[in-house]
Amino acid sequence: MPLGERGGWDKSESRYCGVETDFNDDMPQLLSFNLSTGGFDFVVATLMDPSYRPSMMEKGSSVSHVLPFAGSDLVLSPSQWSSHIVGKISSWIDLDSEDEILRMDSETTLKQEIAWASHLSLQACLLPSPKGASCANYARCVNQILQSLNNMQLWLRIPLVKNDDDSMDCDQLSDSWELWNSFRLHCEHHSQLSIALDVLSSLPSANSLGRWFGEPVRAAIIYTDSFLTNARGYPCLSRCHQKLVTGFFNHSIQIVISGKLVHSLPGVSSDSAADNIGNNIESAHRHPLRPYLDYIAYLYQRMDPLHEQERFELGYRDYLQSPLQPLMDNLEAQTYETFEKDLVKYIQYQRAIGKALLDRVPDEEASSLTTVLMVVGAGRGPLVRASLQAAEETGRKLKVYAVEKNPNAVVTLHSLVRLEGWGNMVTIVSCDMRHWDAPEKADILVSELLGSFGDNELSPECLEGAQRFLKQDGISIPSSYTSFIQPVTASKLHNSIKSHKDLVHFETAYVVKVHSVARLAPSQAVFTFTHPNFSTKKSNQRYKRLRFEIPVDTGSAMVHGFTGYFDATLYKDVHLGIEPSTATPNMFSWFAIFFPLRKPVCIQPGSTLEVHFWRCCGSTKVWYEWCVASPYPSPIHNSNGRSYWVGL
Amino acid sequence: MPLGERGGWDKSESRYCGVETDFNDDMPQLLSFNLSTGGFDFVVATLMDPSYRPSMMEKGSSVSHVLPFAGSDLVLSPSQWSSHIVGKISSWIDLDSEDEILRMDSETTLKQEIAWASHLSLQACLLPSPKGASCANYARCVNQILQSLNNMQLWLRIPLVKNDDDSMDCDQLSDSWELWNSFRLHCEHHSQLSIALDVLSSLPSANSLGRWFGEPVRAAIIYTDSFLTNARGYPCLSRCHQKLVTGFFNHSIQIVISGKLVHSLPGVSSDSAADNIGNNIESAHRHPLRPYLDYIAYLYQRMDPLHEQERFELGYRDYLQSPLQPLMDNLEAQTYETFEKDLVKYIQYQRAIGKALLDRVPDEEASSLTTVLMVVGAGRGPLVRASLQAAEETGRKLKVYAVEKNPNAVVTLHSLVRLEGWGNMVTIVSCDMRHWDAPEKADILVSELLGSFGDNELSPECLEGAQRFLKQDGISIPSSYTSFIQPVTASKLHNSIKSHKDLVHFETAYVVKVHSVARLAPSQAVFTFTHPNFSTKKSNQRYKRLRFEIPVDTGSAMVHGFTGYFDATLYKDVHLGIEPSTATPNMFSWFAIFFPLRKPVCIQPGSTLEVHFWRCCGSTKVWYEWCVASPYPSPIHNSNGRSYWVGL
Repeated sequence: MPLGERGGWDKSESRYCGVETDFNDDMPQLLSFNLSTGGFDFVVATLMDPSYRPSMMEKGSSVSHVLPFAGSDLVLSPSQWSSHIVGKISSWIDLDSEDEILRMDSETTLKQEIAWASHLSLQACLLPSPKGASCANYARCVNQILQSLNNMQLWLRIPLVKNDDDSMDCDQLSDSWELWNSFRLHCEHHSQLSIALDVLSSLPSANSLGRWFGEPVRAAIIYTDSFLTNARGYPCLSRCHQKLVTGFFNHSIQIVISGKLVHSLPGVSSDSAADNIGNNIESAHRHPLRPYLDYIAYLYQRMDPLHEQERFELGYRDYLQSPLQPLMDNLEAQTYETFEKDLVKYIQYQRAIGKALLDRVPDEEASSLTTVLMVVGAGRGPLVRASLQAAEETGRKLKVYAVEKNPNAVVTLHSLVRLEGWGNMVTIVSCDMRHWDAPEKADILVSELLGSFGDNELSPECLEGAQRFLKQDGISIPSSYTSFIQPVTASKLHNSIKSHKDLVHFETAYVVKVHSVARLAPSQAVFTFTHPNFSTKKSNQRYKRLRFEIPVDTGSAMVHGFTGYFDATLYKDVHLGIEPSTATPNMFSWFAIFFPLRKPVCIQPGSTLEVHFWRCCGSTKVWYEWCVASPYPSPIHNSNGRSYWVGL
Repeated sequence: MPLGERGGWDKSESRYCGVETDFNDDMPQLLSFNLSTGGFDFVVATLMDPSYRPSMMEKGSSVSHVLPFAGSDLVLSPSQWSSHIVGKISSWIDLDSEDEILRMDSETTLKQEIAWASHLSLQACLLPSPKGASCANYARCVNQILQSLNNMQLWLRIPLVKNDDDSMDCDQLSDSWELWNSFRLHCEHHSQLSIALDVLSSLPSANSLGRWFGEPVRAAIIYTDSFLTNARGYPCLSRCHQKLVTGFFNHSIQIVISGKLVHSLPGVSSDSAADNIGNNIESAHRHPLRPYLDYIAYLYQRMDPLHEQERFELGYRDYLQSPLQPLMDNLEAQTYETFEKDLVKYIQYQRAIGKALLDRVPDEEASSLTTVLMVVGAGRGPLVRASLQAAEETGRKLKVYAVEKNPNAVVTLHSLVRLEGWGNMVTIVSCDMRHWDAPEKADILVSELLGSFGDNELSPECLEGAQRFLKQDGISIPSSYTSFIQPVTASKLHNSIKSHKDLVHFETAYVVKVHSVARLAPSQAVFTFTHPNFSTKKSNQRYKRLRFEIPVDTGSAMVHGFTGYFDATLYKDVHLGIEPSTATPNMFSWFAIFFPLRKPVCIQPGSTLEVHFWRCCGSTKVWYEWCVASPYPSPIHNSNGRSYWVGL
């Protein structure tokens, strides 16, 4: 039974909670006890008798021997198998043992168990954690399995461990992320290989934990002995654990409870009950782990309901979109509709225009002086409205030219002017701003041509064309904008791109509501453009070298690419932007942009990530190129804009 | 005029020697002086006036201005341009300068000069060495150029520098290989990007120099001041330099002489002559750099002529071949013909068989006891002949069964037996050894089923099938064999494989006469098979983890893959093999095998390269998988034999 509901919006997997059980050859009883009595949604159950070893089987009987599975596939219905059972692979297997017989037994057993689980159409199997720091043979075997697996996920169990003292004992695992990283690199980021984190009683630093939210974690296994005891004797979690579990909920990571009852609750005899989890259960009226489940459900239900913007964005999380090309293509009504709803954005514009009007026209000339304002890229009129409202608010006289190249939007503009009675103040110009022959020069040039990465929808080129009809002392709103990037772990985005199996998708920037990412360092400024710019030597080409320092307590981390943002100064102190540390609240017109890396780059603790970004301009297009120079040099991405460009 | 001839066999580029000149706007004169008077084969000549800077050009005249090229393309014939001129790109360019104007000027100039050189169909351009340790912008620009370049090669000039003290001064270049490596990684190993090494008066260690022979070095520029003076006052090179130059000759690397005459020779006034190299030359009867060229020619002519095996192998150097599948396919007559000529191999077999016969049959029973010997995989009979000769030599009585599955070879066998009159000693069996029902058991089983990597032509599986008819105390010749691998730099092989643009070719092992490779560490043993093996628990699966230590004085190096070899014990102390340190001399039946890496792995000085190799067996095929685990984990190559396998 699900942990709870968050206003009916969140259909996340994390509503379901599981329990890890011991081997039981009576699967129906196991299921009934844990689901009906216990209230869990699924069990993580061993499929094969733990005493089984292929090398101990009698030779000669090889034709007919039956594997020690827990009953036949008929003991449960197919939907019970697939909805309620996660197969737990025998935990004794050790494919990297020095003992060759154990190694061979492990390989045989692993392949047999996965084959059986596939036969049952289980949704997932839990693979035991690698036994040592070396995992190449285990990874090789799992990789072979992955090549021809049905839809089943393989959850590699990884203890959530990171020692900060960095002791150089090679065999001692100091950061379990490294183990995961080796394993998945050997398996080439296979999309069916994911993680089940073992949450222990002590937790690594927040920076170190953060990495996992960019990795494909599907489940978090919490041990009963990681729970504290509250005043009334019931289990609860530390504040750090609570925060982590909330993070899991927000990232569709399912909780699994594991272990025995270690809290003595009123009316429950802990020892005898504990023995009943997987075995003889007739006598137990109440599931011994129920209190832990209840606490997890409490944490789930306690979360804030999703607010409107979150609900809007839910469907877009980690979904890659190609950036708009508003200069080459004409936007559709639907797109205008969406952007026009972003009230916060237009309030900022109105404030900026108001301030500019006040600076431009002193109070004593308010009734005599008419300011000429041109909206370039007027679309269906929201900036025209903001301009007129700013004029009214500041008591300044305004003459507006609304320049728009999309003839379809111009139709709406005309109708709007008629409807609103703006005829005497607004002149509509159906023309590309770069080619318009303006009848007079403007005091203020207002535009909203910014993309998620600032200049990526060619605002610089458009405004360069438009500033011909701006007075020498005129004002451009925005007056400047800067792009930012930040290195991230984003295995989900990486795998989405990889699924296309081509170069082009790895050299394209995407607009995306980033959610399952780990932000590894604060963002840094990339390119800045200032308007107007009447210099004769100006160029819209840009080149920037950036060095990111990953906090030492993060540990090693994988960089799958860079999320990009912008921040724009509309006028003086009025800004607008999505750079996380300064983002304008409650604005939804822009998601981040994502620049992928063809080969993810692994950063060691304390080392520097050096990145180069170029904005290149040709006669018909503008494009970005990017590369990593350190810790090791990557190919230059998107050379000559071969994969991704914005048309002029 | 070429440096010399090596018996007419070597058509290598390294016969040609060039000279680096200063800018001269009279190209015909420059060419005539350096080729006719000087005796050089080509000049490395600046194409554009060194004082040119795009940013200094008058604005406004942009439509009609002429670039300061050395005359027009008409001053030389097209074939003169392409045969005798290497374009030297202006050495002032610095694309990674902090000075933005210099950076922009450099980019413009570089693109203009390359465009002009392409227009002239030059074979190569010499790019100046990057000015600092950072080269990302230079690489980005060159990479853009490479995307649409005609056939021209770009030689990146790299000083041959490596400081052993490893001082951690970041801006100081301590190992120029690192610079090259960054540049080529940014340009993704582009096949038209190669190296011109600047050879200075002091040389790095031999290990460090060795790396370059696995890299695409096309030219070596030797400065006149790197020459010493011999007893008669003439220029000569140090012993280390001589060895290096011989290495260049052997790897088709052209020598270019650069600098002024710095040796005062009888009858030549050094200063005035030096000024004449590129400029006013009427007065000079003799080219001032002629003595240096003469010395280089002397080194060339002094080299040993190629011996027969080298001449045979010349055409196979670095040429990738798919390994034979003699079990699945039947060999052709041509292939038998080639292998049968390898006398050394059969002498070793004959020695081994002789020793086995002596051990098996004491002198006193020589006339009474007949040894049963089976040649499994008899082909067209060379091992039958070797067996009979061994019997004759040792005075032992022999009965030979010649088992061969290829019906075409069996035809030849019958004819051979008839011709040689072996009818009473040799029985021909036309059958796959794995399925033959032998009429009696053998004392000695002789086979030659080894591939370049030992077991890679399935000798283990074949002999496992054949040992059924070997006596319990019988002898297998070979009695064991071991495969070996060695990490190598092999950019040429890497690029050959990359040209296929697919995964399959990067997961295939190739038979190849490796030549342009740098062997980075001694080879290590991988898999061993011993015959006969009557154990019941035997398996032909193998797994090996290897750790290679690259010598510290090598510096960083790129591992493009692994060359593989074998060594076989035929009988007791008689061995046969191609492992470099113990290779049987003058044997040509086997080239090495090459296992590529999909992404070359860069090894830092003193770090360990950990490699895993698997031999996997299925019901219809045998295959290898391999991966790197350290310094960073690679994908598992050839999972499930998806790309490369040997059919059973």
